[in-house]
Amino acid sequence: MDISALRTANPEHWSKAAAIRALTLDAVHAANSGHSGMPMGMADVATVLFEKHLKFDAAAPYWPDRDRFILSAGHGSMLLYSLLYLTGNEDITLEEIRNFRQWGSKTAGHPEYGHASGVETTTGPLGQGISNAVGFAMAEEILRARYGKKLVDHHTYVIAGDGCLMEGVSQEAIGLAGRHQLSKLIVFWDNNNITIDGSVDLADRTDQVQRFKASGWHVQEIDGHDPQAIDEAITAAKKAGKPSMIACKTHIALGSSAQDTSKGHGALTDEKLIADAKAAYGWTYGPFEVPADLKAEWEAIGSRGAADRAEWEARLASVSDRKQQEFNRVFERGVPKRLSATIRALKKQISEEAPKVATRKSSEMVLEVINPIMPETVGGSADLTGSNNTLTGDMGVFDIDNRSGRYIHWGIREHGMAAAMNGMALHGGIRPYGGTFMAFTDYARPAMRLAALMKIPTVFVMTHDSIGLGEDGPTHQPVEHVAISRATPNTMVFRPADTIETAEAWELALSSTETPSVLSLTRQNVPTVRTKHTTKNLSAQGGYVLAEAEGKRQAILIATGSEVEIALAARDLLQAEGIGTRVVSMPCMELFAEQDEAYRKRVLPAGPVRVGIEAGVRIGGWDRLLLGERGREAKAGFIGMSDFGASAPAGVLYEKFGITAEAAAAKVKELLG
Amino acid sequence: MDISALRTANPEHWSKAAAIRALTLDAVHAANSGHSGMPMGMADVATVLFEKHLKFDAAAPYWPDRDRFILSAGHGSMLLYSLLYLTGNEDITLEEIRNFRQWGSKTAGHPEYGHASGVETTTGPLGQGISNAVGFAMAEEILRARYGKKLVDHHTYVIAGDGCLMEGVSQEAIGLAGRHQLSKLIVFWDNNNITIDGSVDLADRTDQVQRFKASGWHVQEIDGHDPQAIDEAITAAKKAGKPSMIACKTHIALGSSAQDTSKGHGALTDEKLIADAKAAYGWTYGPFEVPADLKAEWEAIGSRGAADRAEWEARLASVSDRKQQEFNRVFERGVPKRLSATIRALKKQISEEAPKVATRKSSEMVLEVINPIMPETVGGSADLTGSNNTLTGDMGVFDIDNRSGRYIHWGIREHGMAAAMNGMALHGGIRPYGGTFMAFTDYARPAMRLAALMKIPTVFVMTHDSIGLGEDGPTHQPVEHVAISRATPNTMVFRPADTIETAEAWELALSSTETPSVLSLTRQNVPTVRTKHTTKNLSAQGGYVLAEAEGKRQAILIATGSEVEIALAARDLLQAEGIGTRVVSMPCMELFAEQDEAYRKRVLPAGPVRVGIEAGVRIGGWDRLLLGERGREAKAGFIGMSDFGASAPAGVLYEKFGITAEAAAAKVKELLG
Repeated sequence: MDISALRTANPEHWSKAAAIRALTLDAVHAANSGHSGMPMGMADVATVLFEKHLKFDAAAPYWPDRDRFILSAGHGSMLLYSLLYLTGNEDITLEEIRNFRQWGSKTAGHPEYGHASGVETTTGPLGQGISNAVGFAMAEEILRARYGKKLVDHHTYVIAGDGCLMEGVSQEAIGLAGRHQLSKLIVFWDNNNITIDGSVDLADRTDQVQRFKASGWHVQEIDGHDPQAIDEAITAAKKAGKPSMIACKTHIALGSSAQDTSKGHGALTDEKLIADAKAAYGWTYGPFEVPADLKAEWEAIGSRGAADRAEWEARLASVSDRKQQEFNRVFERGVPKRLSATIRALKKQISEEAPKVATRKSSEMVLEVINPIMPETVGGSADLTGSNNTLTGDMGVFDIDNRSGRYIHWGIREHGMAAAMNGMALHGGIRPYGGTFMAFTDYARPAMRLAALMKIPTVFVMTHDSIGLGEDGPTHQPVEHVAISRATPNTMVFRPADTIETAEAWELALSSTETPSVLSLTRQNVPTVRTKHTTKNLSAQGGYVLAEAEGKRQAILIATGSEVEIALAARDLLQAEGIGTRVVSMPCMELFAEQDEAYRKRVLPAGPVRVGIEAGVRIGGWDRLLLGERGREAKAGFIGMSDFGASAPAGVLYEKFGITAEAAAAKVKELLG
Repeated sequence: MDISALRTANPEHWSKAAAIRALTLDAVHAANSGHSGMPMGMADVATVLFEKHLKFDAAAPYWPDRDRFILSAGHGSMLLYSLLYLTGNEDITLEEIRNFRQWGSKTAGHPEYGHASGVETTTGPLGQGISNAVGFAMAEEILRARYGKKLVDHHTYVIAGDGCLMEGVSQEAIGLAGRHQLSKLIVFWDNNNITIDGSVDLADRTDQVQRFKASGWHVQEIDGHDPQAIDEAITAAKKAGKPSMIACKTHIALGSSAQDTSKGHGALTDEKLIADAKAAYGWTYGPFEVPADLKAEWEAIGSRGAADRAEWEARLASVSDRKQQEFNRVFERGVPKRLSATIRALKKQISEEAPKVATRKSSEMVLEVINPIMPETVGGSADLTGSNNTLTGDMGVFDIDNRSGRYIHWGIREHGMAAAMNGMALHGGIRPYGGTFMAFTDYARPAMRLAALMKIPTVFVMTHDSIGLGEDGPTHQPVEHVAISRATPNTMVFRPADTIETAEAWELALSSTETPSVLSLTRQNVPTVRTKHTTKNLSAQGGYVLAEAEGKRQAILIATGSEVEIALAARDLLQAEGIGTRVVSMPCMELFAEQDEAYRKRVLPAGPVRVGIEAGVRIGGWDRLLLGERGREAKAGFIGMSDFGASAPAGVLYEKFGITAEAAAAKVKELLG
């Protein structure tokens, strides 16, 4: 690569891009870890994008109508941090750049949402950013349809690498963006032909241009080091009327001795290599030094959008108070004042009617009252709409000619759905929820984990949550999936017993600002167990006494979801034999763990034997409830699953796997000795 | 659709296919659940494939050189069961067809591997079958290169639906098959344009023909109800020299009133609909009735391959005894006699040298001695070869011009890798192992679960198994992933403390015939803790006393992997204060749970306080070890993670998150009171 030709062709551009490259080399050198090659390869694309196209104001990084820039190839985090520092982002100071990858710094190894403004999403696990971006672009379309172009009119830009495009989830994202002709989504593919193991060719020979075209994208191929070509391609992409992919032929670790090699992908820390690369760039400054005039040029780029932003603020101020309030509320993840009363009214009605319905149906009943008062909800399902019960009458289906539709047919793409929902939540203004079978949590896992890590309140509606699914068999029957979600930090797993608890779970999920929720819902009908109305949301305490022991309390049955019915029946059997038995419903173990010790001890006093009942594995939070945090609290047992399910009608499976009132009662008696 | 034209155009073909359709309607009607439409739509393709092309012998369903038929669209299980019954498979009797989806039947809701011969893999979770198939086809190539065309020369056929192609993992499979030009892989796409939510168009408009071509596939488009076109297309596909996709335009639920509708996807149980469809087919027989002459024709198809098979057996008998023995051994999942001695020799050497290395490096040291004596191992990595340490010197890299290569560069495709490894294990003759970072268990989860469900011994080499990964930060640091694998039934999770335990773990993983293994390995160096050589594989007991208490035993520290070093250091601190402390190393909780109670009580006697140490979440098997199955055994505590990690050097993270010898010793003292 003839660096000198690049330097002389456009020296003004070159020096701006060289600043990114030099900062990258210095930060990785200081950290003695990281990824140098990608920022060095993509600096030209990023410079042109930020200088000429990206609508942003470094002084107002959360401006709702900014363009979004998503670094899907998150290992190249120094590209983003350099851009933020150079343009004047207040979070990413030079000190932070110097502390790249160190404890407490805002410059984590991979971009972490919430560490610094300007990081739109957490990336690193490949394929996530490009899939989040589909949700960002959908959110923009939906909000533009709702609030008008005056308030919402921006682009979503993505840098994706070969790794992003090899991950299967990228196909789900590409298919969705193509299907919905998300014309404000522009993806730069860093076509450097290098991965960690060596040449991309070792593992893939896919013609990416044809692949994107097959899904209806506009595609261009350019030299990723030619600023004019980059500029023209972005201009063309904006006009394409389709999602646009710009294949940027680049050289990883440009201008260094590791250029075009897999070594260049990683941390370049050799001092001679760094010195030689800087010399090739004509970069004569010290480590972490950016000359003041160059920094000023970059800061001018950072304030380029200030006027746009001010105009936008004026436009926001010009709309009706009601519209402004709603706009601000949905972007602040607030709930409407009416939510609480609406849930209470539904609970009252249900406690009187006491229907026997599946909790997936209960969920639909709740959504029927919520969706009309929360215009920010966007629902969907991964091709199981009629099973997940996620569509309510008022939503409308999102489509090319119906951008105000609030329901997404995600197709058979659980992972893409979850990642795009995260994108919607990150974009702001939208409360996304989406459904699939609980067993297919497996497919959505990488994105569900990222929701928890990013602290965003995505809602996963997981129906058919046990062997109660029946004849579809063990591939479709979750056994360990509730445990998997419970094992994940910052995740609320709700397994409601009836319609009342389902309504409470939805209220909590939609009121959450920093924690995603997993709603674990039955396929099969369950009775209303909360027939006595309380205005208080009892599920907010995680677990509570549903039925008190009569006589001396000898046993406590703790159950969730569909198994609460079984616990109540077991209590009847035990009470008939004079064994005083309390039933605790435990719709959310995480919230229960957050209660003070006094409350927890009131619900689960030491002494009586304890039996847990859940049609899943015991691993997953049960033992501490049963045995106590430090042991010795109680003798305990568990009725649940210890192996995969089977294909048969649900009732047969509960009998055969021994999840019955009789088995629970027998376990209590065994423990009582 | 003019059914009568189809009937009259080729009545012999028609009646054979009609038998599949009628059996499907009857079985779904009897079960009152299932999926009728797909078998009705694909009966013509399947009939032509079985009648004219598929190399199989119904009397010898496990014949190693048979063609494999994989129903990736597993919900259409009645297509497969009908074919097996009609061709004379001994497992699938008419009684089994009548018991479709019932407890104990071999005709589960979705095809379950191990329930009946002829079911090559468990399908249902979409996209898995087509991805398994890539592994089947790779296995065939590798074994053909090793044993010659005389013994290995067969095709892998797949029926995939729109759902399979929308799942991201299919792109990983398509890319891999294209890259490696797996010319004996032939995929029929059931192009019926219907999913559960409605028209495919609701969610996807991808041009599948162009998509497959972009990855280097041979593609044909045919009428999936035209037997001659199907026949010709299969013939052409076999000659293509590339993986081949045949897009079959079909009508779901052909000939019924639900044809071409999403209703037709599901269970057609309406008696009039069934009667009308049968009338349209000209099918005049009773439920579950197949006329004898038609059954005989199908059975002739079932025995068509008997002569081929006999010739193959003669060829096998003609090769050297040594080659025969090896061929049979690898297909029976046997290990070479030398394995045990080889592992023992390595253990002896290591216990003397006592290296301080990362267990991922230990794993490489083990593979260096195993791979030369186990020609059936096929290794690989999802683009982390140098980090996972999965490549040894003798393997060679699998490629178009090196089919005997035993190492696969899977690319950034953890899910596709896991699914294809499952396919290799299912094919037989191969022991697959593959690596990625432990955190990316998330991406591979759906296939890892299926390995456990199918009872196949796939080995997942998961390195960088804690915050010890360091600066790459929380996206790359597993916290809940060991727990996730432990929560999964029939999965052995090995978290070895040093090279000795790593060697023992590999021996157990490679000796397993029915259980997949997850090897949880460190990035960071750990000392050899087992410096006293034992010929016995102590890890086979799951956990064992590594260091005994001196003086009165007051505490037991239980640790795994990299935290065993911390436990030993904590013991030193406690013993220095006169607190007798035992250290138990627990490399495999699942194997420990399988030991008899006497052994478990010997290792974990009631009385002393217990502290568990693992750089992961407590959920995941810890509580029962700490507190006892029924509680009351001990006072207990845990040193580990309760939230996500962070980006910083590993040593800093251990300090900051409090996973230290000092913290463990303090916890013991706190519990002792």
